[in-house]
Amino acid sequence: MSERKRVAKIPVLKVRDGEEAQRAWDAVAAEEPMEIRVNGDAVAVTMRTPGHDFELALGFCLSEGIVDGPDAVETMRYCAGDDPETGLNTYNVVDLHLRVPGAVAPDLRRNVYTTSSCGICGTASIEAVRKRLPALDDDLCVPAGLLRALPERLRDAQEVFDRTGGLHAAGLFDAKGTLRCVREDVGRHNAVDKVIGWAATQDALPLSGHILLVSGRVAFEIAQKALYARIPLLAAVSAPSSLAVDLARDSRMTLVGFLRDGRMNIYTGEQRLILPT
Amino acid sequence: MSERKRVAKIPVLKVRDGEEAQRAWDAVAAEEPMEIRVNGDAVAVTMRTPGHDFELALGFCLSEGIVDGPDAVETMRYCAGDDPETGLNTYNVVDLHLRVPGAVAPDLRRNVYTTSSCGICGTASIEAVRKRLPALDDDLCVPAGLLRALPERLRDAQEVFDRTGGLHAAGLFDAKGTLRCVREDVGRHNAVDKVIGWAATQDALPLSGHILLVSGRVAFEIAQKALYARIPLLAAVSAPSSLAVDLARDSRMTLVGFLRDGRMNIYTGEQRLILPT
Repeated sequence: MSERKRVAKIPVLKVRDGEEAQRAWDAVAAEEPMEIRVNGDAVAVTMRTPGHDFELALGFCLSEGIVDGPDAVETMRYCAGDDPETGLNTYNVVDLHLRVPGAVAPDLRRNVYTTSSCGICGTASIEAVRKRLPALDDDLCVPAGLLRALPERLRDAQEVFDRTGGLHAAGLFDAKGTLRCVREDVGRHNAVDKVIGWAATQDALPLSGHILLVSGRVAFEIAQKALYARIPLLAAVSAPSSLAVDLARDSRMTLVGFLRDGRMNIYTGEQRLILPT
Repeated sequence: MSERKRVAKIPVLKVRDGEEAQRAWDAVAAEEPMEIRVNGDAVAVTMRTPGHDFELALGFCLSEGIVDGPDAVETMRYCAGDDPETGLNTYNVVDLHLRVPGAVAPDLRRNVYTTSSCGICGTASIEAVRKRLPALDDDLCVPAGLLRALPERLRDAQEVFDRTGGLHAAGLFDAKGTLRCVREDVGRHNAVDKVIGWAATQDALPLSGHILLVSGRVAFEIAQKALYARIPLLAAVSAPSSLAVDLARDSRMTLVGFLRDGRMNIYTGEQRLILPT
C-alpha cells in the first residue's frame, strides 16, 4: 500500500491570531470504506485508513468471531471493486476465502456497515454484545517503569500521525518493552484489528505475555478485542470507559489508563506490575 | 437521568514518578449498551453514556434515515429490559412508537449493534454508505473570532468531562455564538445524535444558521449527521478525515478543524467566515 493513499493532501486556509490568513496544503488522514467479504459474501463495510487491509480484514473477522481461527483462512485477495469513473480496482474490497465454508460462525453472519470509529457491529440484542471469552491466566509481570517508556516508543514508530494529527495508533510490545507491531487508523478499533491480524499472519496468536498500548481511550470493544487475542496487559494514553474496566476486571486483564507524563492509573490486575517502592 | 449513571466510580491505583503508589477512587465515563426499537422491533444497539436517551434514540433514527421525520414519532418510552439479578428496569431499551408504521424506511430496517464509537451501521455495501442528501444553501456568515471563542464555551458547559477525561462533546451554537445545546457521550457520534434529537424535540430542525462544534476529530459520519440536520458550519477541535472533507466540499458545508490555541484550519466553505484583515 503506497503512502499516497494513507494521507490525503488537501487545500486549507490557515487562520492564526494576529496573522494574515494563509493558503496551504494540509495532510489529512485518508478514510475510505472497505468491504470485507468471506467466501464472496459481504460481512462488513468499515471506514478505515487504507493500508494493511488484509491484516484488518483478518483481525476483524477473528476478533469478532466471524471466522473460527487463522487456520480457517486459505487466501485473501482484493476483488472487484471498480471505480465507476476510472474503471480501476479501488482496492477497497477484500475477500477471505476459507478452506471450509462452515468455518464462518453461522449465527454471526452479518451484513453491516461500520464507521471509522466502530468496532463491533451486527448484533441486535444487548445480551449478544458481550462475547463469552474465558478469563486470562497469564503470569506476565513487568516493572511500571517499563510501561512508562512505551508511549514515546509508540509515538516514534507512528508514521502518519505527526503529519495529520488524525490517526489512532495501537502498538504491540513484548514483555521486555520491545515494539513488535504498530498500526494506525482513523478508527481505533481498526488499529487494534490490524495488530491482531498481523499477529495472525505471523502465527503469533494467542498473544500471551504481550502488552497492547493504544493512543487514545479504551472503550469496551477495544478491551474485548484484546481479550480475544489473549493479551494480558492493555494500556491506554487516555481514559477507559466503565464497561472496559468491568470487562478487564471480570476477565483478569490488567488495564492501565492515563499512561502519560510520568504517571499511570492501574484499574485492574495490578499483580502484573512491579511498582517502585 | 441521574448523574450517578453517567459517571462510574471505580477503585484505582495511581502511580506517579518518584511517589508512592496511592489507592483512590476514580470517576470514569459510564458506558452501557442501549437498544433502540421502533414499534417494538430492535433496529440498533449502541454503546452509549446513559443520559438523554430519548434524544439519542430519536437523533439516531432520524440522522440514519430509519425514521422519516420527527413528526412520524408518536411516543418514546423505556420498555422491558430487566436486570437479570435485580429484576429492575435497566433503562437500556428505548422504544419509538410511530404514528404510521410505514414511516420506517423499509430498506433501512437494520438489526445492528453499534459500539460507543460507531455512528452509522447496517449498510452492507460501499455504495450505500453515502446517503444522498442535498447540498446546503445557507447564508450563515460569522466572524472567525466568534468561532475561536466557542471551544472554551463548550468546555465550560461540559458537565462530566473534567472529571473523567473520557467523553466526547458536541455543542450547538447559534450565529451569535450562543450555546443552545451541549451533549456528552463516550461515542462522538452519539453526542451528535443527542444534539440532533434535542433539536427534533424542540421542533428546531432543520438547523439552518447554526454551528456544530465537536470536541475531537471529524470523521465522515459526523459530517453526514450534521448535513442531515442542515447545519452549515461544522467545527472540530481536532483533525478531520479525508472523507469528511470530501463530503463537506461536495455538500457546500463549511468545515473547520484544529479550532484551538487561537488558530483554525478552514477546509471548505470559507465564504461563511469573516477573516481578520
